Amino acid sequence: MTGTPLFERMALIGIGLIGSSLAQVARQRGLVGEIAISTRSPETLRRAEELDLGDIYSLDAAVAVEGADLVILCVPVGANESVAKSIAPGLKKGAILTDVGSTKGSVMEQVSPHVPDGVHFIPGHPIAGTEESGPDAGFATLFDQRWCILTPPENVDSEALEKLSAFWRGCGSDVDKMDAKHHDLVLAIVSHLPHLIAYNIVGTADDLETVTKSEVIKYSASGFRDFTRLAASDPTMWRDVCLHNKDAILEMLSRFSEDLSAMQRAIRWGDGQTLFDLFTRTRSIRRSIIEAGQETDAPDFGRHAKD
Amino acid sequence: MTGTPLFERMALIGIGLIGSSLAQVARQRGLVGEIAISTRSPETLRRAEELDLGDIYSLDAAVAVEGADLVILCVPVGANESVAKSIAPGLKKGAILTDVGSTKGSVMEQVSPHVPDGVHFIPGHPIAGTEESGPDAGFATLFDQRWCILTPPENVDSEALEKLSAFWRGCGSDVDKMDAKHHDLVLAIVSHLPHLIAYNIVGTADDLETVTKSEVIKYSASGFRDFTRLAASDPTMWRDVCLHNKDAILEMLSRFSEDLSAMQRAIRWGDGQTLFDLFTRTRSIRRSIIEAGQETDAPDFGRHAKD
Repeated sequence: MTGTPLFERMALIGIGLIGSSLAQVARQRGLVGEIAISTRSPETLRRAEELDLGDIYSLDAAVAVEGADLVILCVPVGANESVAKSIAPGLKKGAILTDVGSTKGSVMEQVSPHVPDGVHFIPGHPIAGTEESGPDAGFATLFDQRWCILTPPENVDSEALEKLSAFWRGCGSDVDKMDAKHHDLVLAIVSHLPHLIAYNIVGTADDLETVTKSEVIKYSASGFRDFTRLAASDPTMWRDVCLHNKDAILEMLSRFSEDLSAMQRAIRWGDGQTLFDLFTRTRSIRRSIIEAGQETDAPDFGRHAKD
Repeated sequence: MTGTPLFERMALIGIGLIGSSLAQVARQRGLVGEIAISTRSPETLRRAEELDLGDIYSLDAAVAVEGADLVILCVPVGANESVAKSIAPGLKKGAILTDVGSTKGSVMEQVSPHVPDGVHFIPGHPIAGTEESGPDAGFATLFDQRWCILTPPENVDSEALEKLSAFWRGCGSDVDKMDAKHHDLVLAIVSHLPHLIAYNIVGTADDLETVTKSEVIKYSASGFRDFTRLAASDPTMWRDVCLHNKDAILEMLSRFSEDLSAMQRAIRWGDGQTLFDLFTRTRSIRRSIIEAGQETDAPDFGRHAKD
């Protein structure tokens, strides 16, 4: 991208996987003029500086947002309220304030009361990530061909919304808009439930007395290892997601458990037809995900090089 | 490998992903002299011939095993009994008879009564595969750096056992031995439960009224898609696994469900510490799997090319 940057100064509050990736893509593609970075941890801030992710570094979020026309909260969702409180006095009139959290209803509740008049708060959620965390885990292409969901409030300023959308498109993403409640329901099934199930099965395996941990590791290629990627995700982030999207998650967990009981019953009573029917209809979804460009079609996630 | 092949003639009964991969690796590395292939389906047999996987092709398994000193059953585990019955009269004295099924107790029960005197029956299970099936899905490196578990009967001929082990090592695998009952317990947790959980969650998502299928597909990169790989596996194979390792699977399902209920309760009551502790201890297992050479360390399964 050439020409004038979309924003003169972007402030990133939090510099983990997402913040670091945003810093890299924004600079590489000229989306912003300057980048101010703030995080609570002195070590992480030092590391961000070593990685040369920004132009201005501060442990004080209120300082980092000064003069910024784009402020992105990149912290675990449970931390948004205290961050919002602390930056509120420093926010520039006309600035866009957004976030990248995995839950949107609770972020709106936490942040909205602290947003000064004249600041445009538009929550967002890039559907992108890896199982790694921290500033070293970031990379500029993380958002390419991934969706970013914005959940604008009803009275949103349309110019601000378009400008934020243009920023995400500049990061390589397609932008979608929906209301926060629906976002939280969608994410509960496509993201939160899968992570919880993955954490749970890895925990169950870890607890067995009859099968050793070394056996689980040795023979993990038969299925188990696919779950360990999600179960290696950041614990703080996922604790906060559970606490901040409780209702939708409990609803999805209940449905999953009901279905699992039905499957368990089919196994107990030798009902092969029910099992075969379920195992057949689930096949097509993967094909659709690959066709939608959201997954690799390399068998076994490309772990094997075909010769 | 050069020199004399380990076996003069290998007969493969069933030519799906595993049979096809065995044919390719055995020929490429000179492990066997001739390869005879049999399958019930004329189309599949024709396809195997087009792919030039063997030397002799027959729809009649009894014909294919004639003169073979290594016979490998590569059929869904529920089909082993009828195959064993039909090939029994044709088996050559001194031949080794083995299989590749995901359950071992039931295969021993099904096959053992039909094994003629002088034939060495040693069940086996290569811990390798992809989500694809059929002869086209096979490739010669499938077994490289993967474990193959043999579950020899107590009175096994040690020379036959060593010869079969050498064959699997020739295919690139490390060979392990254990009793059939323990195998079935280990596989229930590392393979069968993960597949059933994956099938189940994909089914749950498919059934939702509030979230559309196209939303599930669009936003699947946030976790869901990792499960779809296992849920795209062969339905016949997995129906048979459920029916043939019932007790161990039901035991693992019960434990998983108990643990899930405890997690659900922690979410309902906002018990962040319990969640954080679980999410922390599950992280280390992935690291161990990567260190054991059973998983890639590329973030996000290497779906992103880091720039």
